[in-house]
Amino acid sequence: MLAGIIGATGYAGAELARLLSGHSKIDKLILSSVSFEGDNIENVYPNFLGIVSGKLVKAEDVIAASDVVFAALPHAVGEHFAAACMERKIHYIDLSADFRFDDDEEVYKTWYGKTYQFPELHKKSIYGLPELNRQRIKELSQKGPVLIGNPGCYPTGASLGVFPALQKNPSDCLYAAGKGPIIVNSASGTSGGGREPTRAFHYSECADSAAPYKVASHRHSPEIERNLSVMAAKNGISPVQVIFTPHLVPMNRGIISTIYIPLNDKWRVTPSEIQARTDEIRSFYADFYKDEPFVRVLPSGLTAATNRVRQSNYCDISVHVDLNGSTLIVVTAIDNMVKGAAGQAIQNMNILYGFDEKCGLEAIPMLF
Amino acid sequence: MLAGIIGATGYAGAELARLLSGHSKIDKLILSSVSFEGDNIENVYPNFLGIVSGKLVKAEDVIAASDVVFAALPHAVGEHFAAACMERKIHYIDLSADFRFDDDEEVYKTWYGKTYQFPELHKKSIYGLPELNRQRIKELSQKGPVLIGNPGCYPTGASLGVFPALQKNPSDCLYAAGKGPIIVNSASGTSGGGREPTRAFHYSECADSAAPYKVASHRHSPEIERNLSVMAAKNGISPVQVIFTPHLVPMNRGIISTIYIPLNDKWRVTPSEIQARTDEIRSFYADFYKDEPFVRVLPSGLTAATNRVRQSNYCDISVHVDLNGSTLIVVTAIDNMVKGAAGQAIQNMNILYGFDEKCGLEAIPMLF
Amino acid sequence: MLAGIIGATGYAGAELARLLSGHSKIDKLILSSVSFEGDNIENVYPNFLGIVSGKLVKAEDVIAASDVVFAALPHAVGEHFAAACMERKIHYIDLSADFRFDDDEEVYKTWYGKTYQFPELHKKSIYGLPELNRQRIKELSQKGPVLIGNPGCYPTGASLGVFPALQKNPSDCLYAAGKGPIIVNSASGTSGGGREPTRAFHYSECADSAAPYKVASHRHSPEIERNLSVMAAKNGISPVQVIFTPHLVPMNRGIISTIYIPLNDKWRVTPSEIQARTDEIRSFYADFYKDEPFVRVLPSGLTAATNRVRQSNYCDISVHVDLNGSTLIVVTAIDNMVKGAAGQAIQNMNILYGFDEKCGLEAIPMLF
Amino acid sequence: MLAGIIGATGYAGAELARLLSGHSKIDKLILSSVSFEGDNIENVYPNFLGIVSGKLVKAEDVIAASDVVFAALPHAVGEHFAAACMERKIHYIDLSADFRFDDDEEVYKTWYGKTYQFPELHKKSIYGLPELNRQRIKELSQKGPVLIGNPGCYPTGASLGVFPALQKNPSDCLYAAGKGPIIVNSASGTSGGGREPTRAFHYSECADSAAPYKVASHRHSPEIERNLSVMAAKNGISPVQVIFTPHLVPMNRGIISTIYIPLNDKWRVTPSEIQARTDEIRSFYADFYKDEPFVRVLPSGLTAATNRVRQSNYCDISVHVDLNGSTLIVVTAIDNMVKGAAGQAIQNMNILYGFDEKCGLEAIPMLF
Repeated sequence: MLAGIIGATGYAGAELARLLSGHSKIDKLILSSVSFEGDNIENVYPNFLGIVSGKLVKAEDVIAASDVVFAALPHAVGEHFAAACMERKIHYIDLSADFRFDDDEEVYKTWYGKTYQFPELHKKSIYGLPELNRQRIKELSQKGPVLIGNPGCYPTGASLGVFPALQKNPSDCLYAAGKGPIIVNSASGTSGGGREPTRAFHYSECADSAAPYKVASHRHSPEIERNLSVMAAKNGISPVQVIFTPHLVPMNRGIISTIYIPLNDKWRVTPSEIQARTDEIRSFYADFYKDEPFVRVLPSGLTAATNRVRQSNYCDISVHVDLNGSTLIVVTAIDNMVKGAAGQAIQNMNILYGFDEKCGLEAIPMLF
Repeated sequence: MLAGIIGATGYAGAELARLLSGHSKIDKLILSSVSFEGDNIENVYPNFLGIVSGKLVKAEDVIAASDVVFAALPHAVGEHFAAACMERKIHYIDLSADFRFDDDEEVYKTWYGKTYQFPELHKKSIYGLPELNRQRIKELSQKGPVLIGNPGCYPTGASLGVFPALQKNPSDCLYAAGKGPIIVNSASGTSGGGREPTRAFHYSECADSAAPYKVASHRHSPEIERNLSVMAAKNGISPVQVIFTPHLVPMNRGIISTIYIPLNDKWRVTPSEIQARTDEIRSFYADFYKDEPFVRVLPSGLTAATNRVRQSNYCDISVHVDLNGSTLIVVTAIDNMVKGAAGQAIQNMNILYGFDEKCGLEAIPMLF
Repeated sequence: MLAGIIGATGYAGAELARLLSGHSKIDKLILSSVSFEGDNIENVYPNFLGIVSGKLVKAEDVIAASDVVFAALPHAVGEHFAAACMERKIHYIDLSADFRFDDDEEVYKTWYGKTYQFPELHKKSIYGLPELNRQRIKELSQKGPVLIGNPGCYPTGASLGVFPALQKNPSDCLYAAGKGPIIVNSASGTSGGGREPTRAFHYSECADSAAPYKVASHRHSPEIERNLSVMAAKNGISPVQVIFTPHLVPMNRGIISTIYIPLNDKWRVTPSEIQARTDEIRSFYADFYKDEPFVRVLPSGLTAATNRVRQSNYCDISVHVDLNGSTLIVVTAIDNMVKGAAGQAIQNMNILYGFDEKCGLEAIPMLF
Repeated sequence: MLAGIIGATGYAGAELARLLSGHSKIDKLILSSVSFEGDNIENVYPNFLGIVSGKLVKAEDVIAASDVVFAALPHAVGEHFAAACMERKIHYIDLSADFRFDDDEEVYKTWYGKTYQFPELHKKSIYGLPELNRQRIKELSQKGPVLIGNPGCYPTGASLGVFPALQKNPSDCLYAAGKGPIIVNSASGTSGGGREPTRAFHYSECADSAAPYKVASHRHSPEIERNLSVMAAKNGISPVQVIFTPHLVPMNRGIISTIYIPLNDKWRVTPSEIQARTDEIRSFYADFYKDEPFVRVLPSGLTAATNRVRQSNYCDISVHVDLNGSTLIVVTAIDNMVKGAAGQAIQNMNILYGFDEKCGLEAIPMLF
């Protein structure tokens, strides 16, 4: 099978190239780049020298030659590539935000400042978070070419941490709907900022320091809120309000999300019962994700950390209850470049084709 | 004036030695160490070679010779030194947790597992957060030797971020008392872990990674909660409940605290009014701290970051309001070794002696 | 095939476990640990949770059950395991220094302070640097169980950088034998220091800093000197004198070695000819390594860097000539945990069994 | 006294502003910037907020108002400012390379690609390495305005490490003139790359990695070679050939230089005598620098490290002898922003005005 990558020289594109090179079902890659057209990917990423090779062509040539296309482009520049793939009847997996909001053009316009170029595409695209939409992705793949909007990095870690708290029904669910916002406090490594040098990611300015950024204004806020509300709606629970604060910390990869969820009265306990209640909730989480190949609910005593999922497609989740029993604290860790971008895109491809979902994603997390 | 440091070879002790060496009112230092008794501090910290020098003696010798004593010891081992200093009628500034809880032995026992050895000392000791207790520290210094319990690092950054939100009266104050906990999400550099090598602070295990630790169980939780409740009580506001989660991130120094404060109905606004409301609250914060020499409320557009206070005694504060207007988000940044430990101890000494509070603390924050 | 790892909970042992878990010829692992006997490797390395699993047993049980045994032990404690494996007629690959010096007990004694327990084993063991001894390893594997002394990390990068300069004959070779020492200036990441916390590898003491250590006294000096002298002898060149200085720099993995080789008169050039001469030497290097699966001689314009070989078994080599034409400067980069330890051990196993040498070592270098 | 800084918003300029703000003889600063003219330095460096303040003006206004001028500009753009200061009869300390080569226009042209605009200025300028030219700087200051070419960062650390080895006379000096080049292998932190974001200093590309750059082609090579040859000439020793290789390692500040000096026959020893000989050479070094306020020759057992000079004007030097007694290995550590740039410039100003050389440079090195 021949996989194409449009925008192969950005960090997400290069990560796709690296992972797909080790995917047993992919025979060949074809790569495009606007900035480096005509050059070889080896020259742009000398770490690939002699291993991942290929002349960088035009996006159109990628589309013409591929069996499946991944697009790792900036937002709002690639809709026509999606249209072209649908026309060619090949799957298209878009890593930008363009197809993350289905046909909700309003929220896209508000947060990304653009309108939809091909509104009909957005009506049939699907948000590619397997833990939310696997079944639907499979179904769509039976019917023709699928257009997947691959999730944002922060929304992936945040959503997976909250989904189990939105189960059952309004009175039984862990989350106390209406009792206050869910707070998602995340910290990301620098690769999330992409390959273009900027002051914020200049070594001397971000090394040995930590700070939040885009407080109360990050574009991933509406995506998180939408994901949680969709899951809530499935169980008759009212929409979820989210406060999301991203931080930049000096590490290459990884997102740690510490999530504060007000507990439903039913689940609140006195201090002496906290340990037992935490175990109960942890079991519920573990059970909820028991069939997920990439979600690990950590046993008691462990707290999620980014260096335990590094370079893998895993999302680790640890479950805690606040001292006074009123708030569920969930910590999730992902590698922003893998489960938060390229790995999840490949997981989506595996689902589309009925491959083993772990195919090409066998990398074992590295401690260092 | 001769200053003594008991426990001079731990990180906080060495930072005290470094800062006091540049303090214009201190003529000489006398240093003690159990682990390195008889050796010279220069050999333990070769960065001090030829600059900060002195044979490490016994704690008793420090007490006998000093005009003021700083203790940078582990918890629960130094109360008798405090007693000895009181007897010798010299000020004693304790950087451990032993004297942070006044005579509330219960909370100390619960969190530190020890009882008070000299209960009467705890009745007259004072919690050394200048922004809370400056006036009282000054008054005590008029009457005799003072015993100061220097604040913990996290409680310093957390408390300064919330104090202005607990002003006025229950109905006018920013914080919606009773509407839910204040959430303090903090990340610290590694120097907070001290000088003894452990796995958690082993380079290969903590570099290039981020994770929370002691979720819902860190000893600084009750100290933060107490500080906020004391401030609240001054204005007739009910006790404050706090959820505190510390994280370890790969940097040497600094604590960033992102604090979520439910806004009182009176202060809540619609999205269109958020900018104006934020400016109003920022002005209130700036006004509240206008006479504080080490608190900087940042202008609009800036977010607090640890590399802007590095190696200084400053606490930077930025003020934000959540998108839906319901929550005040305050970010504070301190250097955990300076405002979070040694610098604040020196600030307390300066207050005790009526020195300029900035004396010895003139270091300008370094970006890198 | 069942592979055993003795000492599986140190960093090199755990890296072996990680890499062998992805090796298509290995069906199962059996792991031992003295410190964690009875526990599961997953608990010691939670990054392995649900992926690399197995109760840690005694070394004897590993030997009894395995088809091939890797030992990742401290120096001078595992010779009897080697003896036991030879007796059981299974290959034994030792990552310690015990079998790196063949039967030269003198140098081992001088540098490691121990004598050989089983001298006869050292007579038939082989130094496992494939680029030096591949043929001999293959031959030995035809005759019975092989005992391999896996090279040190620094000697691997240093030797590969110099080998081509010791070819041809004394008058034609690049290195000016007798004209002065070869200087190997190396910098390593922290994982080389192992898993046990020590002050030198305490985050606050080694982050954001660089320094040499064990100047003129590192144990890898004699190993480098021996390797180069063996290669030199093959071509009738006199023994090579080496000056080796390791440095510690704040990174998790990687060794960069900058090597200064005095050029033979025949190869010296005037400044205007340097570019052409450099190209000529680079071609010679490239040709020398053309059949090596893991050595990449970089094209003109690139300089070796550790982040281009990260987590791979590659050794990158760049070739330069000093401005005045008198000195060849060779830069090599390896991942100290892979080509410098576990990866090379697996490469040796692959050679022993006639597997594709790249088997289990397919990881593509990651830029970050 | 009023000090002016031309180019105050680059890293070296901002470091000058920070250090001069704490200089007891400087009453006021006046700052210029082309990029940020009209803005306040506080906005460019918010770490300066409320501490180092001042509207950024034109260079001409700085010159018109100042008693002494520092220029922290790129190379080849500021000669006319030097001319203007000489005309106004005020001292001018240039941190660029423009005045580092006296009237040797040839080497400047070769390495920096420019010609001198004001050749007569270069005839009377002085290279500002106090340990080489203090006396001459003092003398010049008696006669009128002085134009100082402040040394490069690498040349400072390299030269100080070699100067003592070039003393006495050709037959007694440590360095074996004519026996081969002196090799200077240096590693620098990222601040040396300046404030402008580039790929080489993009966090994700340089964190957790180490590599040399500009091998055999760095502009500091001729400066080092010139410094050593000047010192050699003073003692009748022939010109010194240098091979210099800079490396980039992931730290904010600091340069470590490991220097290999072939020992004169007279100083060569057998292995058993190395310890004694090393002590002898160390004593010689210590004696050579005994009156230098910022050079520390480390006692036996210590090796120079960048975190022991961090943020100070010190240059630490450790002395070692190779195992076979043929090569002197000297390690030096400086902070590239202080002794390697702004601090040394202030040291030069202190010499010019007869201030205590330590004035404004009292910062004690920080371990972390």
